[in-house]
Amino acid sequence: MITLENIQQAKQRLETIIRPTPLAYAPILSANSGADIYLKKENLQLTGSFKLRGAFNKIAKLSNQERAKGVVAASAGNHAQGVAYSSKHFGCEATIVMPEATPLLKVSGVKSHGATVVLYGANYDEAYKYATDFATKHDKTFVHPFADDDVIAGQGTIGLELLEELDDIDMIIIPIGGGGLISGIASAVKQLKPSIKIVGVVASGARAMKESFEAKTPIDSISVKTIADGIAVRDVTPKMLENVTELVDEIIEVEDTEIASAILFLLEQHKLVVEGAGATGTAAIMHNKIDVKGKKVVLPLSGGNIDVTMLAQIIEKGLVKSSRKMNLIVTLIDKPGSLKMLTQIFEDLSANIVQIDYDRNSVSLDFGDANVTIALETKGEEHQQSIRDNLKSSGYRFNEL
Amino acid sequence: MITLENIQQAKQRLETIIRPTPLAYAPILSANSGADIYLKKENLQLTGSFKLRGAFNKIAKLSNQERAKGVVAASAGNHAQGVAYSSKHFGCEATIVMPEATPLLKVSGVKSHGATVVLYGANYDEAYKYATDFATKHDKTFVHPFADDDVIAGQGTIGLELLEELDDIDMIIIPIGGGGLISGIASAVKQLKPSIKIVGVVASGARAMKESFEAKTPIDSISVKTIADGIAVRDVTPKMLENVTELVDEIIEVEDTEIASAILFLLEQHKLVVEGAGATGTAAIMHNKIDVKGKKVVLPLSGGNIDVTMLAQIIEKGLVKSSRKMNLIVTLIDKPGSLKMLTQIFEDLSANIVQIDYDRNSVSLDFGDANVTIALETKGEEHQQSIRDNLKSSGYRFNEL
Repeated sequence: MITLENIQQAKQRLETIIRPTPLAYAPILSANSGADIYLKKENLQLTGSFKLRGAFNKIAKLSNQERAKGVVAASAGNHAQGVAYSSKHFGCEATIVMPEATPLLKVSGVKSHGATVVLYGANYDEAYKYATDFATKHDKTFVHPFADDDVIAGQGTIGLELLEELDDIDMIIIPIGGGGLISGIASAVKQLKPSIKIVGVVASGARAMKESFEAKTPIDSISVKTIADGIAVRDVTPKMLENVTELVDEIIEVEDTEIASAILFLLEQHKLVVEGAGATGTAAIMHNKIDVKGKKVVLPLSGGNIDVTMLAQIIEKGLVKSSRKMNLIVTLIDKPGSLKMLTQIFEDLSANIVQIDYDRNSVSLDFGDANVTIALETKGEEHQQSIRDNLKSSGYRFNEL
Repeated sequence: MITLENIQQAKQRLETIIRPTPLAYAPILSANSGADIYLKKENLQLTGSFKLRGAFNKIAKLSNQERAKGVVAASAGNHAQGVAYSSKHFGCEATIVMPEATPLLKVSGVKSHGATVVLYGANYDEAYKYATDFATKHDKTFVHPFADDDVIAGQGTIGLELLEELDDIDMIIIPIGGGGLISGIASAVKQLKPSIKIVGVVASGARAMKESFEAKTPIDSISVKTIADGIAVRDVTPKMLENVTELVDEIIEVEDTEIASAILFLLEQHKLVVEGAGATGTAAIMHNKIDVKGKKVVLPLSGGNIDVTMLAQIIEKGLVKSSRKMNLIVTLIDKPGSLKMLTQIFEDLSANIVQIDYDRNSVSLDFGDANVTIALETKGEEHQQSIRDNLKSSGYRFNEL
């Protein structure tokens, strides 16, 4: 546990650059779950995630001499942004080691804060190894993304903000990767208001901390795979497990499809871009992973740094799942007028065609037949059913994709 | 002009249901424009737009008798949500007339607040006519979306919030459709701090208020066409033109492509979903439509109710424009191994293939040739150029789509 004093000092340091992120009531989540749900919009934080808090506190506490020597970090994501931003603030040289496959945009984001980027390694572990070696060799300070008390104290300032902003919180549901965010928030909260239940949430594709928590011993995962890249952590450090064991009441998990639907929900209903990790708490509420009935629950939306191409994919898949898009293969007789008759049905039913493909060469087709692959914008399940009914009653053979 | 007292009273009424929306500094917009740019995040308002303020104030001011009779509004969008939400709050019956083609989601959004929805008319004008007739016939109060002093006073509360939140504002750039938002904000601001310059921004596809302002007489547009549906207003009412002429210093305009790039910018850099109308001010700054150098400028992001399918389209087009996606047609010799040789180039250059289509039947092809249509994820213009260079030096014929 981090001392309250450390977290309070971190808060004072942070107040020189940030204001508390907005906390807002979530009416639909609340109504559907029978609870009072609040969103802590840490995705609107400078640099787009809570990671700034920890990195800033760490670098703020360095001596002038340490700062003059510079800092090093390994990260392809939010921690990199946080360290780069904070280093610039203190006029401190930062070297960020990123895996070679890091998208150029993330690289240029870090460079825009004046940091030096070193692309090294096929994955995070290799970049991490390089970074720690580099720091030792050049006598620079390595800023760990989570296993560092000053970093954790910085993340803990979210806990202090929450207690100032909202009375009678019953539960806080916090994403867990390495455990820095939850250790910070829980340290603050358990010292000031121990009755508040602290629940961690992992992605099913990155369960290391959950398994370790339950087994009470560090269990590293062989591999991780989740759209919540911010919490895709493979290894559990003993010190972090100790923090989590001491401070966390329960750890739950959510699937990637659940995270994706939560991202789409936050986008549509709250007008917020939230990355996978940040949407895990919302996913847990939406998919009833924990009993919250009658409780006042806070969900920290930890960050918003999601690739827009991923966002476009989530929208696309989400539209199909929520019956707002429909993909059909219809078999037609390959003659003039066939396609017109088919499209007439869609016009009559006000279904907008957004993509169409006509194929008469497929081996699976009878001679004289053609397949039309069509993507339709639809207005919900009822609308889709009327389309199916009409196609059937008009004698069409079709499949849904 | 609306009196300050009216706006201040509206603010007191609104304080029973809402908190001020967040105001935040926009570092990249500021750096690129040489100004201090602030975003007023009205897209995070309840119901997803500022329209709640005006509708709530209007309905709050009705007598108990008027409320018992109920209210009527015509709107397919934000005003409908605002009226429905406010009516529910006051236990007042609301009838919302929406054009027949209104997406089901918008209909169900309004219904979820307990309002009765009437689908009528091929467009807004027909729905509007029906709604006013319906209100007269049933002795209900018609709530106009903008040409109503109580509605305008409600929107004006944004102006009061801004003056409380930020000192020394030089300029506010406000989207204009019917003129309700700008009349409200400007009424508050010009009475308290007349030195602040009020700039309106219209979409190029809906220029009625700009043309009328410049000609000093109402000029209706024949048709409107813009992705900023919240300000796609065709007619100018004389009273609203009078307000705008009295209060607004200048009106500028932005194109749809500029609005789309602003929407993508706010999504990626600020983690916010902003609808077309709400992004017009940002578009104006990004595309240098007005001189803001050295000034402190506020952009009210008026709403966030954009269809996610539109959002997905904006992302897709934005990725191509910003060189993060590349669509190619490459002509190959149609033989085993050809495609492998081509894809090897993309692997070597770390360009991710996201879609591929192989065609050897096109009439335009020589016998023995095939066309491959490929969509690639790329890392910027430099990366795309290296792909072009490699394809050329390997002897491929190709076109970009």
